[in-house]
Amino acid sequence: MPAPLGDVAHLGHVELLTPDVEGSTWFFTEILGMTETRREGDSIHLRTFDDYEQTSLVLTAHTTTGVRRTALRASSEEALQRRVRAIEEAGGAGEWTDGLAGTGRTYLTHDPDGHEYALYYDTEWYVAPDDLRPGLKNQPQAKPRQGVGVRRLDHVNYLGADVEANAAWVEGLLGARPTEQIRLDSGRVAARWMTFTNKSYDIVYTEDWTGSSGRLHHIAFATDTREDILRAADLCLDNGVHIETGPHKHAIQQTFFLYVYEPGGNRIELCNPLTRLVLAPDWPLITWTEEERKRGQAWGLKTIDTFHTHGMPPVD
Amino acid sequence: MPAPLGDVAHLGHVELLTPDVEGSTWFFTEILGMTETRREGDSIHLRTFDDYEQTSLVLTAHTTTGVRRTALRASSEEALQRRVRAIEEAGGAGEWTDGLAGTGRTYLTHDPDGHEYALYYDTEWYVAPDDLRPGLKNQPQAKPRQGVGVRRLDHVNYLGADVEANAAWVEGLLGARPTEQIRLDSGRVAARWMTFTNKSYDIVYTEDWTGSSGRLHHIAFATDTREDILRAADLCLDNGVHIETGPHKHAIQQTFFLYVYEPGGNRIELCNPLTRLVLAPDWPLITWTEEERKRGQAWGLKTIDTFHTHGMPPVD
Amino acid sequence: MPAPLGDVAHLGHVELLTPDVEGSTWFFTEILGMTETRREGDSIHLRTFDDYEQTSLVLTAHTTTGVRRTALRASSEEALQRRVRAIEEAGGAGEWTDGLAGTGRTYLTHDPDGHEYALYYDTEWYVAPDDLRPGLKNQPQAKPRQGVGVRRLDHVNYLGADVEANAAWVEGLLGARPTEQIRLDSGRVAARWMTFTNKSYDIVYTEDWTGSSGRLHHIAFATDTREDILRAADLCLDNGVHIETGPHKHAIQQTFFLYVYEPGGNRIELCNPLTRLVLAPDWPLITWTEEERKRGQAWGLKTIDTFHTHGMPPVD
Amino acid sequence: MPAPLGDVAHLGHVELLTPDVEGSTWFFTEILGMTETRREGDSIHLRTFDDYEQTSLVLTAHTTTGVRRTALRASSEEALQRRVRAIEEAGGAGEWTDGLAGTGRTYLTHDPDGHEYALYYDTEWYVAPDDLRPGLKNQPQAKPRQGVGVRRLDHVNYLGADVEANAAWVEGLLGARPTEQIRLDSGRVAARWMTFTNKSYDIVYTEDWTGSSGRLHHIAFATDTREDILRAADLCLDNGVHIETGPHKHAIQQTFFLYVYEPGGNRIELCNPLTRLVLAPDWPLITWTEEERKRGQAWGLKTIDTFHTHGMPPVD
Repeated sequence: MPAPLGDVAHLGHVELLTPDVEGSTWFFTEILGMTETRREGDSIHLRTFDDYEQTSLVLTAHTTTGVRRTALRASSEEALQRRVRAIEEAGGAGEWTDGLAGTGRTYLTHDPDGHEYALYYDTEWYVAPDDLRPGLKNQPQAKPRQGVGVRRLDHVNYLGADVEANAAWVEGLLGARPTEQIRLDSGRVAARWMTFTNKSYDIVYTEDWTGSSGRLHHIAFATDTREDILRAADLCLDNGVHIETGPHKHAIQQTFFLYVYEPGGNRIELCNPLTRLVLAPDWPLITWTEEERKRGQAWGLKTIDTFHTHGMPPVD
Repeated sequence: MPAPLGDVAHLGHVELLTPDVEGSTWFFTEILGMTETRREGDSIHLRTFDDYEQTSLVLTAHTTTGVRRTALRASSEEALQRRVRAIEEAGGAGEWTDGLAGTGRTYLTHDPDGHEYALYYDTEWYVAPDDLRPGLKNQPQAKPRQGVGVRRLDHVNYLGADVEANAAWVEGLLGARPTEQIRLDSGRVAARWMTFTNKSYDIVYTEDWTGSSGRLHHIAFATDTREDILRAADLCLDNGVHIETGPHKHAIQQTFFLYVYEPGGNRIELCNPLTRLVLAPDWPLITWTEEERKRGQAWGLKTIDTFHTHGMPPVD
Repeated sequence: MPAPLGDVAHLGHVELLTPDVEGSTWFFTEILGMTETRREGDSIHLRTFDDYEQTSLVLTAHTTTGVRRTALRASSEEALQRRVRAIEEAGGAGEWTDGLAGTGRTYLTHDPDGHEYALYYDTEWYVAPDDLRPGLKNQPQAKPRQGVGVRRLDHVNYLGADVEANAAWVEGLLGARPTEQIRLDSGRVAARWMTFTNKSYDIVYTEDWTGSSGRLHHIAFATDTREDILRAADLCLDNGVHIETGPHKHAIQQTFFLYVYEPGGNRIELCNPLTRLVLAPDWPLITWTEEERKRGQAWGLKTIDTFHTHGMPPVD
Repeated sequence: MPAPLGDVAHLGHVELLTPDVEGSTWFFTEILGMTETRREGDSIHLRTFDDYEQTSLVLTAHTTTGVRRTALRASSEEALQRRVRAIEEAGGAGEWTDGLAGTGRTYLTHDPDGHEYALYYDTEWYVAPDDLRPGLKNQPQAKPRQGVGVRRLDHVNYLGADVEANAAWVEGLLGARPTEQIRLDSGRVAARWMTFTNKSYDIVYTEDWTGSSGRLHHIAFATDTREDILRAADLCLDNGVHIETGPHKHAIQQTFFLYVYEPGGNRIELCNPLTRLVLAPDWPLITWTEEERKRGQAWGLKTIDTFHTHGMPPVD
């Protein structure tokens, strides 16, 4: 029996590793318009302007790229306990910790691929300092004057050795609902998109072409408009940030996208779904075939080769 | 104890009354870009391009304006039964019917103000005819070539004699979550915004200045972009559709809006929330004071007088 | 001595040939949102909503694709006579005709490549019929409700056997000002962009890879916004119109673009320059090298192969 | 005989007076995204990102608000001499100066109302320092990462005691072409819009309700998109910049607008014309009546009272 939808409320934050912490910080603050809130050891905490929690992204200095941890907020303390019990009853292991990135008591565990997940309910609501006080009380902080001004951390796209095993874990134990997938002619699922919310996806697994485990394909931030993404492309062009592909529209999920490499080497997506939501409670999993994928993106752009060769961290 | 969030999945469709059914149909198809799917007796069925169900709006010829019925889809058959039991245990009455607007077995009941609600789970998924077949399989029909091309019915804003009584009914029996409200200096709640989803509102009650019951303030359709709303304003200007106020941005809920009167006389909002969602499971109800409301809309536009004098249907 | 800038006021209209006149008419009216004004013999007259003249595009049934004629409006009767004298003094030939597409007395001549140009001053101002009356008196007609709603015919990009010879003719005899060009390592100019106005280009010549003369690369229509172009891409996707490349941003001239093939087979560009203008009276001709061109478009999109193989009409 | 169109190429820069030079500088750099290039005495030089000249705006510390000078670039040295001769033959006076804001030899004179105009041809082209180097060679500098990123100084709207006398001077001696005007029932022209380019206006005179001379109604900067203006409204809201009116669309000239007061007290417009241009060489002056003006702006917004009471500098 799948886990009940609703125990996980939404994606909280991600801890991203970078060999160039200053370059990465410049990118996330000056290009994406995120706000730095604190530095602690090797880590810098950053937030998007509409995050009601403290932290959207922890940047940590490291020898290489990748994601250390994805944090998910449960919808209640009871929901958190239910998910932990489900994980442990399924033979999973985890440990409790405290105080990551403004969140309270947190359960750390791993998907079958070894990606670390952090589950928590307690969290500290953000209160803006005077110079970031918003004009409207239904917004946690002022929109940034610099950079794109991303609204939220939107999704994480993991590379995994076995997409279906990982998806089964996220769907079965965390209660995600699959919305779209790619099935190869061989029958293997090459990618699956899953959601905890009315957004059409929050977590994605993509098959790792190297067969490695625990790697990242990209993390994504949502902008308010497609125009923000076009402006972002100009800012990247003028500031020497490598644009990998886009702006264009995905056929899968219809997201308007731009992929860039931040100075540390992580692939970052800027994405905009317009006002598209998945509201149907019985939304059927949509399957794209190998043949359909060959047509490329929605308006005909061919999928770029590096999409299948650049993962974080790199492998030999 | 409030009803569990999640039993009602989303707003389904609305039946709107109009003394000028041809004029209204012209507006919804030629200006909003909706698709007519069938005519039946005095009613015309229309749909937005991203509605997975058959019908977003039923237009019915009538002596006057207003809403006859708001339909809400339950998240499962069990959820539907739970809501019906809750309503009846609370002393409410209702009756079962069938086959409204492509939906199956449906429970009809009323809020304290007398507005009719229809609750259902069974629904027929829309399959586009050849000439409206979409380019992407994750979309129910082609985007319309004419008009604005609204994505979905977004929300209903009811006038009610007693906002709190109506809100208590929707929150307590249907499981809506309140997100924002206006509280007058007298202590009375003058308006409350409630949601069943991650959208920041689906149903709103606004105090009826005439003390009448059962009336409508407006229904709203979501566009994909703010640019769509600016284009809509030009189409209204060139086609003689009365613009009441906007385009501008609401302080409450931050929605970008345009209010027009369709030829039948109903107030219709075009709205765009950008990518704003309410994801926090413990979102606190935000209260705006009379003083704060006097500042007008987000960028300073004063609230227009007719906002407090034009309700549907008119009263003497 | 170059001709004085200012004798040619702007691009008037283009006559486009199509083997599928009904398909082409559907595209220009239903997708681009142009207005049909009259049918005459094998020709259909169409206009963009902000054209103050009668006709922006004449579509003519033919065995193949291509442009029959590009019409330029002179800034006065005297300016027209000056241009005709200059052409004839330079050994050019031409003949006077009358009444093409709402224009008066017109001089027909040819560039060195054999493309026909029509020069005129007299023109009939458009007066909209009742059902197309605009809401504002500074606009010739209502914005169309259907399709993209292109504002104007923006530019013509001709293929030519010898770019420099053609450019010399347009600059020297018609008074165009060159703004940008591509110069190959061999020293040959592969393309040149020229303008009669503050727009950064009105006429372009691109080297014909087949060595043929008199062919067309594309004609372009300006939209009001980049969002219009993104909407156009969706309309093309849903309506089976072939998208060749884009939406993306040109490095040269910075135009936001989308290239499609209309059903007759002509390449049509939708373009948007934002608010970019060339205001400097001494704007220096900007030259792009072969090396620079290899980087692709502004945000990295590679130039598509068919850009160098699909010309109108096709050659064996 | 009116002066030939074309002797004045375009609006160069404006010198704006402010009693709060630090506040004003913050606004123009942090909110509008202009670049400071030099400080000299009481003046700070600022530029928009697409200005090919050195300076778009000189901010000068002063006891009050207003414009000290509007600079216009001639299209050639000969054109400059022609304009100076015309002015002096008409009995006007002026003097030559040098080196204002990166421009060379400059003729200073006054309109009948006493507003100072500077005419020049020689100008120093801007070369961006390394950290502002643009990604594309057809753009003078990188787009700013902070603020709106205005493309150019768009127009100056002067208050004048006698609109027609001032307009006659600008049209007759500088060669501007009138495109639109307001004529009161009394027969008096209350405002006139004039252009030197294909933009629909560069200089405007509005009747000063106080009967004073030499004052300013506003200066305007063009953004690339309407979305930029909506983002600007949010930045103003969050940063405490007073929004006077808008965003909305003017009926006259159809410009999408936002009016704010910069911290020094000058009214600043952000404007976007979409891709609208006046290309007709014989564009007829369009006259709006008092009755038509009462309808308000294009989409119905009423003209705000302060539009008729806030001029720079204030008068007692």
